This record gives sequence, C-alpha cells and structure tokens, in this order.
Amino acid sequence: MKKMLLISNSTNYGENYLGWSIPEIELFALRNKFSKALFIPYAGVSFSYDEYEFKVSNALSKIGIEIKSIHHFEDPVKAVKEAECIMVGGGNTFHLAYMMHKLNLMEAVREVVEQGTPYVGWSAGSNLTCPTLRTTNDMPIIMPESFDTLNLVPFQINPHFLDPNPAMDEMMKHGGETRADRIEEFTTLHQDITVVGLREGCSLLVEGKKMTLRGGRPLIILKHNQKVEELAPYTDISHLLEL
Amino acid sequence: MKKMLLISNSTNYGENYLGWSIPEIELFALRNKFSKALFIPYAGVSFSYDEYEFKVSNALSKIGIEIKSIHHFEDPVKAVKEAECIMVGGGNTFHLAYMMHKLNLMEAVREVVEQGTPYVGWSAGSNLTCPTLRTTNDMPIIMPESFDTLNLVPFQINPHFLDPNPAMDEMMKHGGETRADRIEEFTTLHQDITVVGLREGCSLLVEGKKMTLRGGRPLIILKHNQKVEELAPYTDISHLLEL
Repeated sequence: MKKMLLISNSTNYGENYLGWSIPEIELFALRNKFSKALFIPYAGVSFSYDEYEFKVSNALSKIGIEIKSIHHFEDPVKAVKEAECIMVGGGNTFHLAYMMHKLNLMEAVREVVEQGTPYVGWSAGSNLTCPTLRTTNDMPIIMPESFDTLNLVPFQINPHFLDPNPAMDEMMKHGGETRADRIEEFTTLHQDITVVGLREGCSLLVEGKKMTLRGGRPLIILKHNQKVEELAPYTDISHLLEL
Repeated sequence: MKKMLLISNSTNYGENYLGWSIPEIELFALRNKFSKALFIPYAGVSFSYDEYEFKVSNALSKIGIEIKSIHHFEDPVKAVKEAECIMVGGGNTFHLAYMMHKLNLMEAVREVVEQGTPYVGWSAGSNLTCPTLRTTNDMPIIMPESFDTLNLVPFQINPHFLDPNPAMDEMMKHGGETRADRIEEFTTLHQDITVVGLREGCSLLVEGKKMTLRGGRPLIILKHNQKVEELAPYTDISHLLEL
C-alpha cells in the first residue's frame, strides 16, 4: 500500500528548519513504523549534500529519526531498494529531476513506493511525486533528461501556493505574470490535468486509495474552464486520486 | 551589424499594453528604418495568436508600425528571412522555445539578426536572445527540444528582476525560495555565466559591439562569488558583450 506524506513547505517564516512539519513527520513515522530514512538531497544546489544532510539530520534526530543521504552510497538504486523510508528534500526541482534521471532513481523510487516503502517529500520533493515537474515554481537551471517525474499521484501539485493578498498585490505591480496567470497557462495547454495548489503549512497524506489534506488551509483545485474549488483540511479528498 | 532592443516588461502596472515601451520601440524603428515587423506570438498561451497579434498591432499602429504574425505564414522560416524586423512578445518562455525549436526558427532568427535584421523582444522575447532559457521566471508548462535559445548575447537575462521591498518581504514570508535564492542556484551551478537582472521599465539596446542600458533603474550583475554590481542607465555597458 502506497504511503506518502507530501508537504508544501518545510519551514514557515522565522521557524527552525522543518519547524511546523516535524509533528507531521513524527506521526507518519509512528504510523508506518520506521526510524531510519534514506535522504535524497539532489534538490539542494547552493550548499553541499553533506550540509543538507546535516541540517535535516539535526532536525529529525530530535524525534528519533536517523537520516542517511543517498550520496554516500556507491549503489544508489540498491540504497533505494533497501530503504525503510525515502525522504526527498526541497530546493530546485529541475536539479532534483536531473539527478534522479541521471542515476536511474526515478523508476527505482516509483517501484518501492508503489510496493509500500513510505515516502516523505517537501516542496520539490512533493512536486516529484506528480506525473511531471511542469507546475514547479523553480528556475530551470539545468535541463533534465525528461520533465517526467514519479507519477505516484495523478494530479499536478503547485507547492507554496500563494493567495492574492495586499502585500502581493503591491508586489505584483511589476509587469510579470502572477502565479494564477502561470497556472492558467498550464491548464490551457493541458486541459485534462488537474492542478492542486498546496498552501503553506499544509500536506497531503496518501494511504493506499485514501487521501487527506492536513494543515490549516484549504486545498485549491484548478482545472481548465472550471470554477476554482476549495477542499477543507481533514476531509476525505480521495476522489483526487482517481482522476 | 546586430541591432536589438531587449525590453524587461512590456507594460507597467495600470498602463495600456506596451505603455512605457512604445517610445523605445518608436526610436528603435526610426533609427533602424523599419515600419513593418514580423511578430512571433508563441509565448502566448492563454489566448489565441490572433488575439495576441491584434493586441500588439493595436498598440504599434499608433506609431506607424505594421505587424504581421508569423502564424499566418505557410513557410515561417521564409517569413523570418524576409522580415524587416523581428518582434518577439512576452508570455511563457518554455512554450516560446518549444515552438521555435519545433518550427526550426531558432537558427533562422539567429542568422538574420546576426546579419542585421533588427530584433525587438520583451520579457520572454528578451530571454530568448540569451544562450539558454535557464534564467526565466516562467512555469515549465511544456518541455522544449532543448533549453538552448538564440545565443545573441553572451549573458543570461533575468527579466522582471525584483528588488527586495517591504511588500515583497511580507510576501516572502511564505516558505518558497526568493528570486535571489533562485539566481544563486543558477550561478552556483554555472559559475562562469553572468546573470543580468533587468528591472521593470528598462531595456538593453545592442548596436553591434555597443550596448546601452535604457530606463530609470540600474542593471544588476550577478555572478558566482562576486559582489553584486549595479550599472547605471545610459552608460556604456558594452563590456558585457565580451564576456
């Protein structure tokens, strides 16, 4: 049975790293009985994989979860196959996808997660579970072999989904596109695909065919020519898995 | 001699379409003696190419420039070769690059511009003149054949460059990366490439080996491990063409 915790943002403004998401991860680990996780740091670009591992390890050791980063393993595919849990950190989604394809990890991770290895992702790590990376907010700093990603959920997540607010309206007086414009471009071009705007402080919990939204804000559902829909936290949103 | 006008944003907040940039285009047309332009609308996604052509045509007819969009031509490569001027509008850079590669226009446009056909681009259309699209802010809604673009300037433009400001700081209390974070990821990965942050209301005017910044705000120069540099408008910044 597929078990995934897909987190929007690791850390809210002003918090320690992984601040608000620690109890979500702790609960997920307890329910799925793991205390070790294989960490995939490839979304990290402006710092070393060792530094990234240290940061995550430091945060998760407080709740008794031991992290080892995949970059230490000679055979990363084997490491995936043997992992108790797979955790994929945030950063740049293009670099993450580039490395996952290059190291033949895309298929390996998909397989073990389909077979029941728990998966925790945040930001880029959540995006990675979608059919493609085409709804990321990241800069395309490197071209991956393909935009295809893990395809473990049938919809596209837009993490860090931003609602219009006065501060943003002020900012958006620049001449670039808004987030809504960008997602509309996507849904215009891909009219059969649903985009799910995952707001800050929220996560999607997938357990087999069941999915729940957790956190303090509704999930926003964007689809071509359909009225924007909002789904409340802690309600059953499993129908999204059957798209 | 290469003649290019690379505009950050077509339109400032609250203006008519192409508001502030009309006199820049008018001046560029006068100096380069053209009154007709071939328009490339492929960055437009959420509206039709006809609609895009109408919008641009409507704005530029006021200064006596006649626009025809490339989507009307049976042989787009021939249309490029015969154009008096090439204009590339803003929108989604991935879709623009996808179509340019698909229709074999990348090489065709590069050749005629190298040979002296004037080029006007705004937003995605300015990004297109860089070696690659890797510093766009756009959503990767479609995978182009390659991230390589026109390579008519040796640096990467980040259009709509945003300075931190109080409204933005407020907004950036979400857990996503800031613009500066994203560009730092790029310069970390590509340490020999210079990124040029082109602020709103500004343009780069290239005439052969000479380049001038026009507009009311300095150009920001971002390079790995180098102090951020600012270059004043209406000064000679031709050294950036020799990178």
